[in-house]
Amino acid sequence: MAEADTPNSDEPFYLDDLHVGQRFTSGSHVLDAAQIKAFASEFDPQPFHLDDEAAKATLFGGLAASGWHTAALTMRLLVQNGLPIAGGIVGSGGELSWLKPARPGDTLRVESEIVEVTPSRSRPDRGSVRVRSETRNQHGDVVQTFTARLVVPRRISSQQA
Amino acid sequence: MAEADTPNSDEPFYLDDLHVGQRFTSGSHVLDAAQIKAFASEFDPQPFHLDDEAAKATLFGGLAASGWHTAALTMRLLVQNGLPIAGGIVGSGGELSWLKPARPGDTLRVESEIVEVTPSRSRPDRGSVRVRSETRNQHGDVVQTFTARLVVPRRISSQQA
Repeated sequence: MAEADTPNSDEPFYLDDLHVGQRFTSGSHVLDAAQIKAFASEFDPQPFHLDDEAAKATLFGGLAASGWHTAALTMRLLVQNGLPIAGGIVGSGGELSWLKPARPGDTLRVESEIVEVTPSRSRPDRGSVRVRSETRNQHGDVVQTFTARLVVPRRISSQQA
Repeated sequence: MAEADTPNSDEPFYLDDLHVGQRFTSGSHVLDAAQIKAFASEFDPQPFHLDDEAAKATLFGGLAASGWHTAALTMRLLVQNGLPIAGGIVGSGGELSWLKPARPGDTLRVESEIVEVTPSRSRPDRGSVRVRSETRNQHGDVVQTFTARLVVPRRISSQQA
């Protein structure tokens, strides 16, 4: 049987509960032009993120969300219920790719897969996990991938506490 | 003579103007607790980014900015005058590392260095550039590095237009 998506229960996942190939799916977020322009005004004030008309003459061919906006929305979807890690989602970085822009009217959703689980040798209370998260629009097109390095606690830590 | 920082003039840089080792420095941004909490409320609602007291009991030991907030502020500093690329800063992704959290009261600044310049073989009007940007606080500590892949136009494109 192929690996089914893990139902996102209310019980958060410790390192001991995670394995390579395990998958999680987030809820969804509907993006609109007002959100795109508000984020861009504050963090990425470039014409292709701010102005419908000006955007048409650029590489993007129309209003597009800042990649950092897509990344921030991806994080919200993961935090809300897309990746229920014990103690929260704490990352030290990762590899980010923007494959196509997110546009006004897009519905975004995040599908994540555990790609590596490594208990710490020096710290028995934690380990590191690599998770590849694909952010998709309503057509199933991947707009962003982020392969994150996360710090995840072990169950043993609560027994020792 | 060591490579000096390139003065950030009003003239944007085309691919033809960039070379490996060239450096750019941004202006600065002062972070405070209200900004940290506002960003986190919208995009990364976890206790260590939202609540001073709750944050003390976590891995962070006190209120810390979301890594995505640090990334978004880095982008703003680059767009404002930190990396004056012709046609704007258009990235396809990169490698992101959060080395330490940004905190309330931190003054952030971004230092960037060109690490690769590659004219496109198929498109004579553009090329790709890799830029490593270090985001530092007022103590000089690096809080984030991002090595971006950018699409940068060539001067030839305006002659052909």
